[in-house]
Amino acid sequence: MDKKKLVVIGGDAAGMSAASKVRRAQPDWEIVVYERSPHTSYAACGIPYYIGGMVEEENSLIARSPETFLKKHQILALTHHEVIKIDTQKKCVLVKELATQQTDWQTYDHLLIATGASPIHPNLPGVQSQGVFSLSTLESGILAKRYVTANRPKRAVIVGAGYIGLEMAEALLEQGMHVSMIDRNDQIMGTLDKDMATRVYDYLQEQGVQLFLEETLLAIHSDASHKVCRVETEKRTLDAELVILGIGVRPNTELAAAAGIQLCDSGAIAVNERMETSEKDVWAAGDCASSKHLIKNQDIFISLGTVANKQGLVAGTVIAGEKASFPGVVGTAITRFQDMEIARTGLSEIEAVALGMAYRKATIESSTIARYFPGSGKIAVKLICRADNGLVLGAQIIGSKGAAKRIDTVVAVIKGNLSVQDLVYLDLAYAPPFSGVWDPIQIAARQLS
Amino acid sequence: MDKKKLVVIGGDAAGMSAASKVRRAQPDWEIVVYERSPHTSYAACGIPYYIGGMVEEENSLIARSPETFLKKHQILALTHHEVIKIDTQKKCVLVKELATQQTDWQTYDHLLIATGASPIHPNLPGVQSQGVFSLSTLESGILAKRYVTANRPKRAVIVGAGYIGLEMAEALLEQGMHVSMIDRNDQIMGTLDKDMATRVYDYLQEQGVQLFLEETLLAIHSDASHKVCRVETEKRTLDAELVILGIGVRPNTELAAAAGIQLCDSGAIAVNERMETSEKDVWAAGDCASSKHLIKNQDIFISLGTVANKQGLVAGTVIAGEKASFPGVVGTAITRFQDMEIARTGLSEIEAVALGMAYRKATIESSTIARYFPGSGKIAVKLICRADNGLVLGAQIIGSKGAAKRIDTVVAVIKGNLSVQDLVYLDLAYAPPFSGVWDPIQIAARQLS
Repeated sequence: MDKKKLVVIGGDAAGMSAASKVRRAQPDWEIVVYERSPHTSYAACGIPYYIGGMVEEENSLIARSPETFLKKHQILALTHHEVIKIDTQKKCVLVKELATQQTDWQTYDHLLIATGASPIHPNLPGVQSQGVFSLSTLESGILAKRYVTANRPKRAVIVGAGYIGLEMAEALLEQGMHVSMIDRNDQIMGTLDKDMATRVYDYLQEQGVQLFLEETLLAIHSDASHKVCRVETEKRTLDAELVILGIGVRPNTELAAAAGIQLCDSGAIAVNERMETSEKDVWAAGDCASSKHLIKNQDIFISLGTVANKQGLVAGTVIAGEKASFPGVVGTAITRFQDMEIARTGLSEIEAVALGMAYRKATIESSTIARYFPGSGKIAVKLICRADNGLVLGAQIIGSKGAAKRIDTVVAVIKGNLSVQDLVYLDLAYAPPFSGVWDPIQIAARQLS
Repeated sequence: MDKKKLVVIGGDAAGMSAASKVRRAQPDWEIVVYERSPHTSYAACGIPYYIGGMVEEENSLIARSPETFLKKHQILALTHHEVIKIDTQKKCVLVKELATQQTDWQTYDHLLIATGASPIHPNLPGVQSQGVFSLSTLESGILAKRYVTANRPKRAVIVGAGYIGLEMAEALLEQGMHVSMIDRNDQIMGTLDKDMATRVYDYLQEQGVQLFLEETLLAIHSDASHKVCRVETEKRTLDAELVILGIGVRPNTELAAAAGIQLCDSGAIAVNERMETSEKDVWAAGDCASSKHLIKNQDIFISLGTVANKQGLVAGTVIAGEKASFPGVVGTAITRFQDMEIARTGLSEIEAVALGMAYRKATIESSTIARYFPGSGKIAVKLICRADNGLVLGAQIIGSKGAAKRIDTVVAVIKGNLSVQDLVYLDLAYAPPFSGVWDPIQIAARQLS
């Protein structure tokens, strides 16, 4: 095969996974990655724990630096470089070097768009105040950490009670702050059914988090030095020296759209199983690309490091001329707040209703390990299956240490088209330090079989 | 349906699961359980932890007492009652009341044999000495605990380095004893491949356990008060005031065999998917009954609380006139020794070789959770798949806290006929406190895909 040139836009999970895979398969190809931030290949999911102090070094969040990519993998990863235009006809990209603002056209044989997603930043009065952060890039995490260290805020308001919101609540409590959370919905954790989300709500309150549901952030007020001092909703004002915006992310697709590359209804870049876009020799992977939901059979936008890595691996494999396909996702997610672990996969009840799918459900409470064993804690499992044939559709798990990773078993059960009956008799591992004799997910399955 | 009489022989997991299920489905039936020990429905797997002191109360190992079964479920569970003969023609059993030695014929409409398994007790000089225990029943566990408390042994020898051996090593170290282990094989943990078992061997040694492989127990010596004081192998003598025999168990099938009920080559009672034996109206479940190995497609003898509960549930469901079938097992097992967790499922390499099956394998080392996160520990995964189509055949996992229960994902993968390729792209849960961005089992799968 000829020596080709791969250009990658975006140097985080998807982009660098793809670049690394291409390098392994094609030692002679030229590989250039343009990344507008100062960092490559970092663990964005670790940012809350870095701010909370559980992870001390920012460097430990960086999987591989540009220097490592160059020395070990002969991949040229140029940080502070932003691609501002794609010409798919001439097969080149316009690159701006952010330090000098100089621009330059660069050709490609293969182009991978891995531009990620950006936090939604509402257009509200005062949103540009100092001390207001929406965390996504490692850079934003480092800035937030510096702000906390320098200003020692006592009261924080988190806007949006989803995954990032919960993780930041833990981090800020850890830093000794008083934490309030605002969410415009009537429940926290929108990917859980309300009955399960309520368990998390109660625990957050018990741990001292003040929660305000069905309230919307209207304005942020700052003091004379432009530092945030107060936020305002339609019902109240809350003093706050730190504000975290965790109200969601959207895919960075302006560049792709401007180049005439097709987007999905979800707003993400349309890709097939081989991560090919609508344009020849252009791939997309990671947060900016769509994912097929295997149960919904719909293209969805999902922003997760695991998916980005997998899509990057597929894109890199296909670009390098080998075979691979990304089958899709089932909407798995996991997090924790202090001693409470939370996970979900597949369809929630609300999603099954929305799809008009006839389902059955069971929610059980049990113990994470043998009840008599030291360290045993509570676990609640909600399991959802098809009404007609009992095929498992989804699960939600909330519980203490050791509870949540059990969701993986349900993920494999869904992928294998297994029923609740199959799950009841699955040969799962049992010993008193690990489980009760019936694993909690099997106890739920028994109620549905 | 007519009012029927169910007789159950054996009041532990399988027997009581079946009895409870029949009671739920048939409120009017007469249900009588004969159990020769003093206890029903106990957690035999908890015995090592009771002896080690991690579980303090013997009562906490009893899921339900005979009194509870009678009061709450109208199940008459008669302890200290042994069934000594079955007449399948006349549909009755001869019951001996152990206190009085009186015998009595009792009729049944349905009979469930759930006689369990007994530890292999070698016929060696001195094996009857005081301080020699083979743990299986709760009774034997209580006696061992009493012996330890009364005699404060300083040196213990464990014969057999399998699951019970490992758990007892932890328990006895916990009690401050010097622990030696003897095994006649050239590796410990025979259900693991030697390369994986070696990791456990090394850790046992590091923690102060003295290991003697390829040595056989020849004799046990006792002092004037008939208490064990020394054991003898072909290579050495070891001082010991406590001896634990953990050299395996065999199914209790004499009663069934004498009644003309068919056994398998494995020595266990032959049953079909509905737990029916060769005789009309006679079922068998639990350790005494055979299980089909789903990959080997062979009837095997397996002695595990989970399997016993599942088989009991199936037997009870079918006896009560409803539909159920037990699909079989894949040989899942899990244990721990101190901070090391160990699990396996499906085929080991040695089993694949024995079956003449063409396979591929990968062994990887990774971290249990994100490497930079507090509490991260080591994990090793060995994954085995079919050479032709990549279908996952088995896995072995050894690692620190949080490592071993991941085996359940592989169990579901095997049951769902998924390949290593499917496993790579499975939508498993990721957040830094729970996993790396690629779960360790996916890292192993990537090497095989």
